[in-house]
Amino acid sequence: MSTYGTLFRVTTFGESHCASVGAVIDGCPPGLQLSAADIQVQMNRRRPGQSDLTTPRNEKDAVLLQSGLEHGVTLGTPIGLIIRNEDQRPHDYSETDLYPRPSHADYTYLEKYGVKASSGGGRSSARETAGRVAAGAIAERYLKLAYGIEIVAFVSSVGKIHIPVSETPTSVDEEVDDAPEPLSEEFRNLLATISREVVDKHPTRCPHPDTAERMKKRIVRAKDAADSIGGTVTCVIRNLPSGLGEPVFDKFEAKLAHAMLSIPATKGFEIGSGFRGTEVPGSKHNDPYVRRADGSLGTQTNWSGGVQGGITNREDVYFRVAFKPPATISQAQATAQYDGTPGSLAARGRHDPCVVPRAVPIVEAMASIVVMDLLLIQKSRQAAASLLPPITTLPATMVMPPKV
Amino acid sequence: MSTYGTLFRVTTFGESHCASVGAVIDGCPPGLQLSAADIQVQMNRRRPGQSDLTTPRNEKDAVLLQSGLEHGVTLGTPIGLIIRNEDQRPHDYSETDLYPRPSHADYTYLEKYGVKASSGGGRSSARETAGRVAAGAIAERYLKLAYGIEIVAFVSSVGKIHIPVSETPTSVDEEVDDAPEPLSEEFRNLLATISREVVDKHPTRCPHPDTAERMKKRIVRAKDAADSIGGTVTCVIRNLPSGLGEPVFDKFEAKLAHAMLSIPATKGFEIGSGFRGTEVPGSKHNDPYVRRADGSLGTQTNWSGGVQGGITNREDVYFRVAFKPPATISQAQATAQYDGTPGSLAARGRHDPCVVPRAVPIVEAMASIVVMDLLLIQKSRQAAASLLPPITTLPATMVMPPKV
Amino acid sequence: MSTYGTLFRVTTFGESHCASVGAVIDGCPPGLQLSAADIQVQMNRRRPGQSDLTTPRNEKDAVLLQSGLEHGVTLGTPIGLIIRNEDQRPHDYSETDLYPRPSHADYTYLEKYGVKASSGGGRSSARETAGRVAAGAIAERYLKLAYGIEIVAFVSSVGKIHIPVSETPTSVDEEVDDAPEPLSEEFRNLLATISREVVDKHPTRCPHPDTAERMKKRIVRAKDAADSIGGTVTCVIRNLPSGLGEPVFDKFEAKLAHAMLSIPATKGFEIGSGFRGTEVPGSKHNDPYVRRADGSLGTQTNWSGGVQGGITNREDVYFRVAFKPPATISQAQATAQYDGTPGSLAARGRHDPCVVPRAVPIVEAMASIVVMDLLLIQKSRQAAASLLPPITTLPATMVMPPKV
Amino acid sequence: MSTYGTLFRVTTFGESHCASVGAVIDGCPPGLQLSAADIQVQMNRRRPGQSDLTTPRNEKDAVLLQSGLEHGVTLGTPIGLIIRNEDQRPHDYSETDLYPRPSHADYTYLEKYGVKASSGGGRSSARETAGRVAAGAIAERYLKLAYGIEIVAFVSSVGKIHIPVSETPTSVDEEVDDAPEPLSEEFRNLLATISREVVDKHPTRCPHPDTAERMKKRIVRAKDAADSIGGTVTCVIRNLPSGLGEPVFDKFEAKLAHAMLSIPATKGFEIGSGFRGTEVPGSKHNDPYVRRADGSLGTQTNWSGGVQGGITNREDVYFRVAFKPPATISQAQATAQYDGTPGSLAARGRHDPCVVPRAVPIVEAMASIVVMDLLLIQKSRQAAASLLPPITTLPATMVMPPKV
Repeated sequence: MSTYGTLFRVTTFGESHCASVGAVIDGCPPGLQLSAADIQVQMNRRRPGQSDLTTPRNEKDAVLLQSGLEHGVTLGTPIGLIIRNEDQRPHDYSETDLYPRPSHADYTYLEKYGVKASSGGGRSSARETAGRVAAGAIAERYLKLAYGIEIVAFVSSVGKIHIPVSETPTSVDEEVDDAPEPLSEEFRNLLATISREVVDKHPTRCPHPDTAERMKKRIVRAKDAADSIGGTVTCVIRNLPSGLGEPVFDKFEAKLAHAMLSIPATKGFEIGSGFRGTEVPGSKHNDPYVRRADGSLGTQTNWSGGVQGGITNREDVYFRVAFKPPATISQAQATAQYDGTPGSLAARGRHDPCVVPRAVPIVEAMASIVVMDLLLIQKSRQAAASLLPPITTLPATMVMPPKV
Repeated sequence: MSTYGTLFRVTTFGESHCASVGAVIDGCPPGLQLSAADIQVQMNRRRPGQSDLTTPRNEKDAVLLQSGLEHGVTLGTPIGLIIRNEDQRPHDYSETDLYPRPSHADYTYLEKYGVKASSGGGRSSARETAGRVAAGAIAERYLKLAYGIEIVAFVSSVGKIHIPVSETPTSVDEEVDDAPEPLSEEFRNLLATISREVVDKHPTRCPHPDTAERMKKRIVRAKDAADSIGGTVTCVIRNLPSGLGEPVFDKFEAKLAHAMLSIPATKGFEIGSGFRGTEVPGSKHNDPYVRRADGSLGTQTNWSGGVQGGITNREDVYFRVAFKPPATISQAQATAQYDGTPGSLAARGRHDPCVVPRAVPIVEAMASIVVMDLLLIQKSRQAAASLLPPITTLPATMVMPPKV
Repeated sequence: MSTYGTLFRVTTFGESHCASVGAVIDGCPPGLQLSAADIQVQMNRRRPGQSDLTTPRNEKDAVLLQSGLEHGVTLGTPIGLIIRNEDQRPHDYSETDLYPRPSHADYTYLEKYGVKASSGGGRSSARETAGRVAAGAIAERYLKLAYGIEIVAFVSSVGKIHIPVSETPTSVDEEVDDAPEPLSEEFRNLLATISREVVDKHPTRCPHPDTAERMKKRIVRAKDAADSIGGTVTCVIRNLPSGLGEPVFDKFEAKLAHAMLSIPATKGFEIGSGFRGTEVPGSKHNDPYVRRADGSLGTQTNWSGGVQGGITNREDVYFRVAFKPPATISQAQATAQYDGTPGSLAARGRHDPCVVPRAVPIVEAMASIVVMDLLLIQKSRQAAASLLPPITTLPATMVMPPKV
Repeated sequence: MSTYGTLFRVTTFGESHCASVGAVIDGCPPGLQLSAADIQVQMNRRRPGQSDLTTPRNEKDAVLLQSGLEHGVTLGTPIGLIIRNEDQRPHDYSETDLYPRPSHADYTYLEKYGVKASSGGGRSSARETAGRVAAGAIAERYLKLAYGIEIVAFVSSVGKIHIPVSETPTSVDEEVDDAPEPLSEEFRNLLATISREVVDKHPTRCPHPDTAERMKKRIVRAKDAADSIGGTVTCVIRNLPSGLGEPVFDKFEAKLAHAMLSIPATKGFEIGSGFRGTEVPGSKHNDPYVRRADGSLGTQTNWSGGVQGGITNREDVYFRVAFKPPATISQAQATAQYDGTPGSLAARGRHDPCVVPRAVPIVEAMASIVVMDLLLIQKSRQAAASLLPPITTLPATMVMPPKV
């Protein structure tokens, strides 16, 4: 449904042609200093029309805070916010409405709800994500101020063009155990240092300059062909405390996967070594422990992607999300009407040929929301456990004092 | 946490060395004819020690139904069930306990809970999944009887050895739009017809005989090397009604991804074209609509994997789950103790060199639970909408009568 | 927190001096014909300033629908709505702010959140209920159209002045089993026939004319004394289907009690015979079954208040809610400041001397939300069970075919 | 449904004639030293057959812990527990089964689920509460060890026989504002000091000796008449921290009311002054603040019952729960069969003539579960807020540093 989270709860509303889209953020810690401008930064990054690679509609997307703050401080009560739609009229039905757009949500929304919204797929529009981005910006402001957590996403592939992640090509000989090498030094550095400023330097939001230029050409080629193309977004979360994630059903990666696959047009998720890691023997895939400079325990490699047993281990979390090519294309497609009549459909208007550049802040937002919620749950456990008398029946090495 | 679902709620409990593991299944429709034997079938498929490819422990895993049924009929009240642990004593701490096993949950469980279970990773053990499999078997019995829904998973890769899914190799030339071809006729046939009987014919649970044999060798090789290897499980869901999935946060694929990534050792999920689909232009990736023999609307291809806009469209759902190589291996690993002291750890006992064959019924179980829950929610909507007076303010073509 | 419900989910936001209060209603059945005017009726009944018995602020309270409808039909997507606050500025702190108002939420909100909202008790203001009333109006429109369900609340007492419910005075002799007689014929008729039109005929919203006049005087006396007075609201729900309520924790009366005690200023809840029924022997309290005119089973009396075992039985549900006297009074009170300094506080401004007349639509709204949510859950069960093959292992008399 | 709570989640299962009843307690803080004996104390108090005032069945009710602990310490993972049923066979259907017992759940369970359990009302039996009591005992062990919280319930009335709460009789003259006087010194002392040991001294569990003797006679009279009688249970919670309760829907009293009305046979709930408080003018009902000996703020009186605005204020919480007379009585009742045929029903077997003595530990259990859950949520907020930089934009008096 349209609410996400246990203690940090985000509820969104709104579709393309209604009065406004928006969100209610419940459970935000009180005492957080927050302004509309803090939120607007990410809203602007999500907004269409930022470059000639995205759809030229300009929705402005100003966030209007309704409640939950006074004098720039959160009260701990729900934060309501709205973003007005520029075009608030349901459009008139036309012949195009007789066709469910192939691979779009028109057909399934009608099957599910029995009522066809004028926009077709109702809430399936990317417009819906505005509320999520605003909510995510609030979460990440807390995470930054309280923990110094950094969440940065970037475009890692468009079509067949990928940022290189490994130096050594993999042998195709299945008898050979070379298997994928760990991530290249260069890619690990990228994960460790990448900032949003760097990501935004190129309109593709790919921080690898050569690759970015090739991606740009690929998107332009799709656009020129009235076609579209998919891609992937990679996201890194740094400075996460250990202990986040709630086994067995709400493991850190399970919540992340849920959140990511709830973003329109996503088809896949992988964390750490992901699908590639399935080809690696355990002896190479395991991340050995080492003592860090500060005396704490870390891992030498990070195939795990910052999670073990569904719980964060204080290493960086990184994951990748697959976005399919946008379904709405303006070239003619042979398809059928709702009643089965065969025909040809060409979508009107202008559409994003590739969503991944705009998906970057949405991925960051959903990651922030997930981290925030799991962090609040773990803080509760630690605070509660810290009040108990010391455990006397277990060896001291089997016990670790709670962190509050 | 340990409860999953909104209307069909599964709560599991238990770890490796306690009295029993089990589950409470709340919200099962009343009037379902169900016996322990119906459940045991899948329990047996999950059980270790079924072939020399899996760990030889024999846990028997008999399901003991505690409540919720009388005379073989579900009452609509919670179904409690337990599966006794054979070894119920927490083990004695030894020197090995000073080491968190690399890439295992030992370290993160201690960080999270502050107490080290004798089994190390507490609930992270595969033992925990017994309760899920039992719950899934109940769900799928309903789905089979009420809808004829079929859920079949199989091993699609071990290490680098994959069932072939496409006939045409993809050009590596990024300027060329050949892009991945649709799934091969052979693979589509496999998805359309595969049964558990066929899957179980080979100990790897790979239904592609040549590939299965190569997989087997690969697993034996890992075992002989005191090492482990990962793999993927593919699952198909057939005869699903349309309309399942609850946008925006509980889209069908989002719930599936959540459920799959909550299974131990998983690192990735993709549905339909998945990561591969990101490389395909929209014009080739879109699934055109066609009128089916029964007059209803279907799609010609199924890159979407049975979902559009987060809602099922009545085509087969298929998805793939990545399992990393098991972390517990008996070869020595250079690593560090909890306190940072460097050393070498070799796990005692015998361990699965590869989890994917045993993961097959777990994937099926989690898929069943997700489908069941989303189905119950959609039935509610349809039943409720069917009681309303007809809509008079919308054109007839924009409205579809509710299905009950 | 600020979300209520499982399938019909209401999330509210807003406090006294923010931009707007509002609600998001998720899970409303699609295809419901609904206008802002349908909602406004109840908003107007909740609004202050309707008579000289309530606070003279005039907030207008126009509901602005933001999403979830097109052409006057619900889409099945979340309905967002806002109601602007007339006074949107947080007020300036003054000496009064040094005092937590006795029995108000000022102190507890500061203890809980650590931040003092300018309005003191933040969301504890009755202003917050505007969103609930709007949400309730949507629920009850569905309930009316689909089931003919009627939900009517009225003021049953103000101070010591009560609508008479029983003709026979109870013996105070504890040895005598006369015990409270069942409700008087007159009161049962009232429950069976009362309408909102009749309720609204008197400014007290008490439908018993003599009692209403005495109540009015009592309220005026409180007002004149710069004091306040409490009262009770009784609510009846008619035409409810049987089978609503989800044991064991979400019994019909448990959900109702939860909803009612979440309304500001409430201190008690009772259903059917309530506290009075504890004094009656079982032989008199039990409601014998009888065959109704339509052949179905009903009960001769209705001490149960329409629920048995936490599930509705198709008899009228009636319950009573206790509202304490408003805490904010303008006469001086000896109390202490936040820092413990003793002093005297007299609240500024004008305040409701008695909340029960305005509480009537709020009680109706919360009742509607509870019924709606439980109805959707039960519809799901019935629809799901109806698809199963007939039960063969139980005697026919022990089975009842599902109702869809 | 059968799960209660957000962070401390209790899921129960089981009915009268199945293999076992039990519970899964998820979210218990790790590191709690706990034994089966800690739980058994309350199980024994709930058990029938403890005196000749309750049903003589002896179910023993030994709690068998299944998971979540090792070496007597909670691991933070779900605690599974079962209590075997002595009589595990569904009984044979007889003529009595043709009659739904008046005011029992037989009829509504069949209406709801469409299947008649052999025990009739399925989960409506008091047997179901065994799991709750076990779960509550775990919660209260934490609350005791971490906070010194004390939760004590006792029987405050049976039939018309009440523990006196006020010394001054109330004028029936509605013009007179004497109104109910605050609780008598004696009753306030009772609330402040009552212990379970004292409560258990009398078989009625009424700690007021004279009243207790009269109650006993009243129960015996009901028993001798093959009849039953209701009563009330009052419960006090001492040493609660301030700040518990989650407005607006999950106010402390709303959660309590929900929990209490989910107990079988309950018909009402009131907190603090409750229904009586509705008759008192605000000027007398308000609780003035005073500085306590330790410098903190307290209230002089406690009409509020420890909550204001739905949040605890550190004063004692006290509330009262109404239990109807048990529906199952062995005297003959004129009623109708399921098919409407009139007839006479006399229940077989022996039944509790009055449930309130046995309800005492159930009320305590549910109160413990509610407090535990709300406490965990508030600890999360406080811990999260404590990590934020100090608020600079608000006057110092408007801000209170978070408590961790």
